[in-house]
Amino acid sequence: MRIGETWYRTIWVADDGRSVDVIDQRALPYSFEIMRLATVEQAAHAISEMVVRGAPLIGATAAYGVCLALLKDPLHGSLDRALELLESTRPTAVNLRWALDEMDQAVRYLAPDERVAAAYRRAARICDDDVEISKRIGEHGLAVLHDIAGSKSAGPLNILTHCNAGWLATVDWGTALAPIYMAYDEGLNVHVWVDETRPRNQGASLTAYELGGHGVPHTVIVDNAGGHLMQRGMVDVCIVGTDRTTAAGDVANKIGTYLKAVAAHDNGVPFYVALPQTTIDWTARDGLSDIPIEQRDPREVRFIEGLGPDGRVVEVELTPPTSPAANIAFDVTPARLVTGLITDRGVCEASLNGLLELFPEWRSDVEQEGGSDA
Amino acid sequence: MRIGETWYRTIWVADDGRSVDVIDQRALPYSFEIMRLATVEQAAHAISEMVVRGAPLIGATAAYGVCLALLKDPLHGSLDRALELLESTRPTAVNLRWALDEMDQAVRYLAPDERVAAAYRRAARICDDDVEISKRIGEHGLAVLHDIAGSKSAGPLNILTHCNAGWLATVDWGTALAPIYMAYDEGLNVHVWVDETRPRNQGASLTAYELGGHGVPHTVIVDNAGGHLMQRGMVDVCIVGTDRTTAAGDVANKIGTYLKAVAAHDNGVPFYVALPQTTIDWTARDGLSDIPIEQRDPREVRFIEGLGPDGRVVEVELTPPTSPAANIAFDVTPARLVTGLITDRGVCEASLNGLLELFPEWRSDVEQEGGSDA
Repeated sequence: MRIGETWYRTIWVADDGRSVDVIDQRALPYSFEIMRLATVEQAAHAISEMVVRGAPLIGATAAYGVCLALLKDPLHGSLDRALELLESTRPTAVNLRWALDEMDQAVRYLAPDERVAAAYRRAARICDDDVEISKRIGEHGLAVLHDIAGSKSAGPLNILTHCNAGWLATVDWGTALAPIYMAYDEGLNVHVWVDETRPRNQGASLTAYELGGHGVPHTVIVDNAGGHLMQRGMVDVCIVGTDRTTAAGDVANKIGTYLKAVAAHDNGVPFYVALPQTTIDWTARDGLSDIPIEQRDPREVRFIEGLGPDGRVVEVELTPPTSPAANIAFDVTPARLVTGLITDRGVCEASLNGLLELFPEWRSDVEQEGGSDA
Repeated sequence: MRIGETWYRTIWVADDGRSVDVIDQRALPYSFEIMRLATVEQAAHAISEMVVRGAPLIGATAAYGVCLALLKDPLHGSLDRALELLESTRPTAVNLRWALDEMDQAVRYLAPDERVAAAYRRAARICDDDVEISKRIGEHGLAVLHDIAGSKSAGPLNILTHCNAGWLATVDWGTALAPIYMAYDEGLNVHVWVDETRPRNQGASLTAYELGGHGVPHTVIVDNAGGHLMQRGMVDVCIVGTDRTTAAGDVANKIGTYLKAVAAHDNGVPFYVALPQTTIDWTARDGLSDIPIEQRDPREVRFIEGLGPDGRVVEVELTPPTSPAANIAFDVTPARLVTGLITDRGVCEASLNGLLELFPEWRSDVEQEGGSDA
């Protein structure tokens, strides 16, 4: 997407043809900084420290992390260590595992001196595919937005989103925000309620930054406010992203997503989840038992970063120093609360049958795995 | 309650016998500061700027505000101006209106030279009564906690609370936290999940400060986390306060309360609201239409205060400067999501019938007002 006069992706091969450049998302919205990754350790660190985040972008960064490892040492020991290191960075996003499997398959059976070039080719294709996938999600989601807007008599189409599932969460375009960009570009009257998304405030920082950059009307709200807005008819539809979706349609996403979904259900507000098919974990069925939930440093709850009065970014402490905190990064929204899944193949019911209608090639795997409860 | 070695209330007549001292709650948890109020304008400012907050304490402060106005000028014009000024400070908490009505009745029909003394007497009684009321809420709530703890086989009784309904929200003891203090003092194994309560973080600052000061085990969480904890069986009961409860049992409380209530309902977690009877608005029936919801300065969303690296409190900006924000201070939890109301007269169903069983003296007023839908 455009930043000022330049069109950026979130990740690209640097001008040395080897290193990988990413936008340092920790610096947004205060400054636009590019970080260069030259080793697999730096790639792993960028993922775990959330220099990059968002399930699709985590996958893309991990793919290039494998390239960087092979560049240093193309042998199997190096490949295995890279896969292990990268997989340990974030437990919930399943795209990470998917991308690592893809990279493994792309290089493992090649001669060592062919692996580096093959790895860079596969990583580049993962990125290009992700852009295409995001565009398709955008098109399918746009149809959903048109339907909902068509049943409204006046005023903007009010969309609530949580966390950041925009172009900064993917290689370009985004998942939940892709249809919103397309709707805005078409001239549809849209307005987005942006959950700030504590503790790391990816909504208030990244989503507000993205939407503002594109000119999309939006209002930042605290995470507490969405239920009130839904009760008052001020939300027409919720769209969020996901870090892992089970074969039964349960959705793991940023902590707090479930609260919005249960409120949407209580108020008859449609609740959609936008995802590339790489985010589906076909081996998982029950989201509450089958998805590992990342616990992060409580410091992210006890402290917050912002722009200080002197124009510098500063971290401030919010809680009494003796009060412990817990930092649960994700929650699971059961399929029963999800109106539909917006995938790159189309929109489906959040259920095994719904998903298998769009992805029939998974039927035999899933039925073997899950027994007859399809 | 105790701070260090000293027992404090949140409001008291200063040693000059005229001014009123309050704890400046904006400075907590970083420092303990007392603010002296010498005029009605200062009292109004203390309420609107949230030097003091919490429905019962707002009422007590308003009562003393009337005293300060009469001290300067005991005539009716002064009284009327004081009532109007104080009532305009916060629209949602009904204790404010109740306390002002009490003060009005206590002084209006007296000779001018008798009004000041009568006003201070009435304000002092409002404060003393509030302490008694909080203790009774604590005792009735304690019985609820005993019941729930009795049905648990092991581990602490996990209680989730939102915002601050502790002794800092009242004159002493608190509403939602009063039973928790009593349970802890009795030796019950309790643990409190403290919602930080954006935007003003009264949970992370005031509730964590209070609980820590009393030694009650607690963990601060972001407002997004409660649903996840309930899904995982990590919350045995929710208890919150309220700023206004309708005769039908709908509850206005700090923004985000509804989200916790709807999640509690979805997970079969009991959800209690603790309140003094002065918080019941017997003229209101439908919370969504009958309760005015305060909109505060969006700056409270866009900025946050915390302790900077140099040990000074600093305000930092969280959002892009061009992104608008909305700051809705309260939401309404429908009675259907409330397991019970813990009042100073006992625990009742959140319904008109439930409330009238505890407060039968209101039956004729309510039936006159609301028609036959009792």
